[in-house]
Amino acid sequence: MNEATREMLMEVSVATLATALFKRGLRHQVIQGVKPLGWKGRNMVGPAFTLRYIPAREDRNSLTVFRNPEHPQRVAIETCPAGHVLVMDSRKQADAASAGDILVTRLMMRGGAGVVTDGGFRDAATIAGLEMPAYHTRPSSPTNLTNNEAIAINEPIGCGDAPVFPGDIIVGDADCVIVIPAGIADEVAAEATEMTVYEDFVVEQVKGGAGIIGLYPCTKDETREAFEAWRKTQNR
Amino acid sequence: MNEATREMLMEVSVATLATALFKRGLRHQVIQGVKPLGWKGRNMVGPAFTLRYIPAREDRNSLTVFRNPEHPQRVAIETCPAGHVLVMDSRKQADAASAGDILVTRLMMRGGAGVVTDGGFRDAATIAGLEMPAYHTRPSSPTNLTNNEAIAINEPIGCGDAPVFPGDIIVGDADCVIVIPAGIADEVAAEATEMTVYEDFVVEQVKGGAGIIGLYPCTKDETREAFEAWRKTQNR
Amino acid sequence: MNEATREMLMEVSVATLATALFKRGLRHQVIQGVKPLGWKGRNMVGPAFTLRYIPAREDRNSLTVFRNPEHPQRVAIETCPAGHVLVMDSRKQADAASAGDILVTRLMMRGGAGVVTDGGFRDAATIAGLEMPAYHTRPSSPTNLTNNEAIAINEPIGCGDAPVFPGDIIVGDADCVIVIPAGIADEVAAEATEMTVYEDFVVEQVKGGAGIIGLYPCTKDETREAFEAWRKTQNR
Amino acid sequence: MNEATREMLMEVSVATLATALFKRGLRHQVIQGVKPLGWKGRNMVGPAFTLRYIPAREDRNSLTVFRNPEHPQRVAIETCPAGHVLVMDSRKQADAASAGDILVTRLMMRGGAGVVTDGGFRDAATIAGLEMPAYHTRPSSPTNLTNNEAIAINEPIGCGDAPVFPGDIIVGDADCVIVIPAGIADEVAAEATEMTVYEDFVVEQVKGGAGIIGLYPCTKDETREAFEAWRKTQNR
Amino acid sequence: MNEATREMLMEVSVATLATALFKRGLRHQVIQGVKPLGWKGRNMVGPAFTLRYIPAREDRNSLTVFRNPEHPQRVAIETCPAGHVLVMDSRKQADAASAGDILVTRLMMRGGAGVVTDGGFRDAATIAGLEMPAYHTRPSSPTNLTNNEAIAINEPIGCGDAPVFPGDIIVGDADCVIVIPAGIADEVAAEATEMTVYEDFVVEQVKGGAGIIGLYPCTKDETREAFEAWRKTQNR
Amino acid sequence: MNEATREMLMEVSVATLATALFKRGLRHQVIQGVKPLGWKGRNMVGPAFTLRYIPAREDRNSLTVFRNPEHPQRVAIETCPAGHVLVMDSRKQADAASAGDILVTRLMMRGGAGVVTDGGFRDAATIAGLEMPAYHTRPSSPTNLTNNEAIAINEPIGCGDAPVFPGDIIVGDADCVIVIPAGIADEVAAEATEMTVYEDFVVEQVKGGAGIIGLYPCTKDETREAFEAWRKTQNR
Repeated sequence: MNEATREMLMEVSVATLATALFKRGLRHQVIQGVKPLGWKGRNMVGPAFTLRYIPAREDRNSLTVFRNPEHPQRVAIETCPAGHVLVMDSRKQADAASAGDILVTRLMMRGGAGVVTDGGFRDAATIAGLEMPAYHTRPSSPTNLTNNEAIAINEPIGCGDAPVFPGDIIVGDADCVIVIPAGIADEVAAEATEMTVYEDFVVEQVKGGAGIIGLYPCTKDETREAFEAWRKTQNR
Repeated sequence: MNEATREMLMEVSVATLATALFKRGLRHQVIQGVKPLGWKGRNMVGPAFTLRYIPAREDRNSLTVFRNPEHPQRVAIETCPAGHVLVMDSRKQADAASAGDILVTRLMMRGGAGVVTDGGFRDAATIAGLEMPAYHTRPSSPTNLTNNEAIAINEPIGCGDAPVFPGDIIVGDADCVIVIPAGIADEVAAEATEMTVYEDFVVEQVKGGAGIIGLYPCTKDETREAFEAWRKTQNR
Repeated sequence: MNEATREMLMEVSVATLATALFKRGLRHQVIQGVKPLGWKGRNMVGPAFTLRYIPAREDRNSLTVFRNPEHPQRVAIETCPAGHVLVMDSRKQADAASAGDILVTRLMMRGGAGVVTDGGFRDAATIAGLEMPAYHTRPSSPTNLTNNEAIAINEPIGCGDAPVFPGDIIVGDADCVIVIPAGIADEVAAEATEMTVYEDFVVEQVKGGAGIIGLYPCTKDETREAFEAWRKTQNR
Repeated sequence: MNEATREMLMEVSVATLATALFKRGLRHQVIQGVKPLGWKGRNMVGPAFTLRYIPAREDRNSLTVFRNPEHPQRVAIETCPAGHVLVMDSRKQADAASAGDILVTRLMMRGGAGVVTDGGFRDAATIAGLEMPAYHTRPSSPTNLTNNEAIAINEPIGCGDAPVFPGDIIVGDADCVIVIPAGIADEVAAEATEMTVYEDFVVEQVKGGAGIIGLYPCTKDETREAFEAWRKTQNR
Repeated sequence: MNEATREMLMEVSVATLATALFKRGLRHQVIQGVKPLGWKGRNMVGPAFTLRYIPAREDRNSLTVFRNPEHPQRVAIETCPAGHVLVMDSRKQADAASAGDILVTRLMMRGGAGVVTDGGFRDAATIAGLEMPAYHTRPSSPTNLTNNEAIAINEPIGCGDAPVFPGDIIVGDADCVIVIPAGIADEVAAEATEMTVYEDFVVEQVKGGAGIIGLYPCTKDETREAFEAWRKTQNR
Repeated sequence: MNEATREMLMEVSVATLATALFKRGLRHQVIQGVKPLGWKGRNMVGPAFTLRYIPAREDRNSLTVFRNPEHPQRVAIETCPAGHVLVMDSRKQADAASAGDILVTRLMMRGGAGVVTDGGFRDAATIAGLEMPAYHTRPSSPTNLTNNEAIAINEPIGCGDAPVFPGDIIVGDADCVIVIPAGIADEVAAEATEMTVYEDFVVEQVKGGAGIIGLYPCTKDETREAFEAWRKTQNR
């Protein structure tokens, strides 16, 4: 992905991005129900690399399957490109784990930008202590074999009721994770950056006692002028 | 599929099949939450042909996409082999339709053995009146574009929390739908047929006043002998 | 139970009984979420005999356990007194069956007044065709061993979020099932019978064009008098 | 409402209407989760008159409140204009009733065009037998006082996750109920009527063996011409 | 509200208040499912000022609606009286935000005593850092326009399945939020304060090794006397 | 319980235990949906002592019932043996509390090893500050009388969809709680301890840059040898 875009996306909120996508008619791009394990104080940004799970059939999911070097879950971890975010469609099923600390650590060592599942991680407390961002719905100790079989890599998937296509840009902050369609990531990043400048101005005004009518959104010339003046002082 | 197997599966219940699979360690093969639209008095039997949906992204799902002759939902209907059951992974999402009466009618005309979705059908009352068996969770009038995008054909999927691989044998009765792994369909059909003979004997005994202890399951020699004698009179 | 009470409860609705209990401060006596399999045109009435399930542990729930003549599910069927209603606490879990047609038929042959589960029955279409009333949430083909272990007989239980004590009077109609505490069943039956007379009068009045203000509930002397006059003509 | 519009809406399906609204960017107008009590073979059509419930506070919801002639539930029934559909926001809460047969009968006698709740009705089997259409999620015997307090009449509400403004046109068929914004009801009715003509043609073609590619939707000139010819023969 | 009442309510727990209301027959006054964003170490106390949302209709909820100075969400923020708690009925729908940090900051600057939604806030991490108490179900980045339309101010509403009338006294602690009917707030505050004295005594006794039988609740004269003696030493 | 087993279980993760049970065909032993109140940095380990709740019937659940020294909830607290974990079947119902800080403190003072409910605790913030481990689904302030009646002590129960028999060994870590059948606790503890040694080796290898194929699980002789060598250096 475009490095300037990545840098911009590190500095904006998912809320602002959600509004930028809403303007474009995209209303369902936030991955519902996930939260960060141990918020690290910086956004997660990267193109999506996907893994899809289906319900586990018992005869295909004994512990011995992990001895197979071609097992899709293991292959996903070992082939996810550096700088990418591994996004797992776990069918919103968190009664068993999507992965654990060993695999997530390996992904981090390989340069992964982050990992998201709409299920849950085992060893969640350990994952929360790693440097790489991770998002899930809740801790879940049972092995994924219990009810999820990793079946396919880098297909279009759903995750938390959001559509995710390989290469879409994934951004996570302290609150949520959003999926930006690859083709509009650059323009959305730029627009969100602009919006953020204005929002920062608004916050400062509101903390100074200003009301929101006419200020947020801006509907008055004088407010626009005050913003432009403030902006110059900020070099933004 | 084996024609003898198909004929046997027309005559057994999903409950009996579920027990036969339970004996083999398979506990999650019933598609949870679906029911027949207008039970037609005979089982649905056929190999699975699958369609997978993901959450709909608005810019990819305007009404015009159906003008594309390659749209996966339409292609699935037009390529599902005769005698097969079309199984749709609609993400257990019934707020919009998986398909409607026109597509289901077309599938029937092409010789489809049935259709199952873990979402809902629009035009459900009409579909209930067709000859071909159909199963869903509830009627749902909005077009599938509203929240589901048909994305892939004949992949392994989940449907109602059951794993479905293309070619698995799907059986539906008045109550439920079950997925029999392709490799064991013949033996399971034979075993379920045998079990059904005994269950029929049990029902007759119970209606005649017999208790279930020792009868169901059979744990007494005299019961076994009575069954064998009865069986001969039935030519089964 | 009192035979006169049974006869009265055969002729009143669960809605009227729910209101009679509401007057006494009892708001949660309706078993939520269950419906009749094949409404037979008459109420189900009888004292509760209970069966409690817990989640199944796999090593305790192979098919061979049914060979044990002391298995609680089988014992419940064979010991539920005639005239009683067997009420099952299936933990509101319908992904596997609470029982099937053979056991329900046996219960009927033994004189059971009915059966209720907050899970689901297998062979539901067959059960719907039996004479004895039965209520559940939805058809479910997998054997109960899949996720429920029958553990105890005739304890206080919950069923569909209602408290059920052995001996409480269970009443089911075309809509719902309610639990009347044993100690007040006689008075509640009598009161509901009285209420039903007035409700029948109201329905006749409303169908004749009367408004509900002052009529339902009765707040006018003239309405009370009209009712008394009507009642005499009805010999009720 | 416009009588011609009403007549057109009696003859189209909710599915077709949902697609007509989808074209206009309205994706959430179907009242989710409701079904007809005793489908009467004809659509329910009329402007919305609304009733809003909030959670019941026990001290405000004893049985005596119904003696108050100003109780909003009773007033709603007695003031809903003839030809209108009473739509109730029961907070998708069906553990207690939204209303019962007496009130629904009264509404019918007053000329109501129908009634919808996203909760449940008591006396549901009786209501199913009335002439007036009614829709709910499931039968529920407890009085509404148990957990719902009728609080306001003819405000904008939500019902089954759809927005309902007083005067919006409500249409129900055998499957679902939809809310057409008042301002576009005439044009939507006309458009849906046109769509229905084409869909009827398509069904006939498909039953005759035609494939759906190019036919549904129409993307070929020859199909368009065949349709126009067929249409003339139908006088539509 | 009464200042002495406010001071008392700052020092008692929601659990104690819930018990005081339970004694009065009020069982559903706790707003279910909400939690504090960044517990600030002191209770939230104030009269309720309400905002009601309905499902969003797309044509009424483009971003431009916020330019309208009469938009109810914005007006609610600008008119909520100082010392009040803004309570939002977001239909328990957290897939889009009820509000974000700018509006919540403005409410705080205007002297708001707190804010509660049964949906979720965007910019939740920022709101957690503000001085004013806030409660929600989970962070949610999409703008409220996505599925909620602010429709009415200061009506009776439901919030988390609790009834909320404008002016009711809202109290939140580290665990939960409760709604005290306005008319009994003073007596409930006094009673809860008394109960808290005894509970503090009990905790001290239990930490000293005492058993709970006879102590909690108090059923022995000697315990009562010990409490009275202890109380004097505490000047409470 | 065996002291050596207890010590081993203090040092392994629930995830590792879940895998050890999975190998034995036990897939549902994790108590779903619970989390620690204030993780104390050490595992909770002890045999289960159980308490079962049913839905509360109002006439049996006024505040005065706690004056009864035989009330099962109070008796459970006062009779749970030292070193045991009190496990409550609260029917996964967290709208009212399973217990509060006074009872949990008393349990701690009596030597309890911990407490688990599939409902919620009141005074949760206080309980989080106690030394004894506690697990629940979410804070809940209403008294348990509101919707749960404590009915029986030390019966087999379900908790969070896991089966719990009195005496089963309960283990909780920062993520989850698991139930080890009493008869296999010693062997499972030993096996999990062995597994943990290898997992620690794997983590060290992965942090050093190793890939997971062949390492996790171990499928290469050289890896096995490296592990054995490493193990000696660790004295494990």
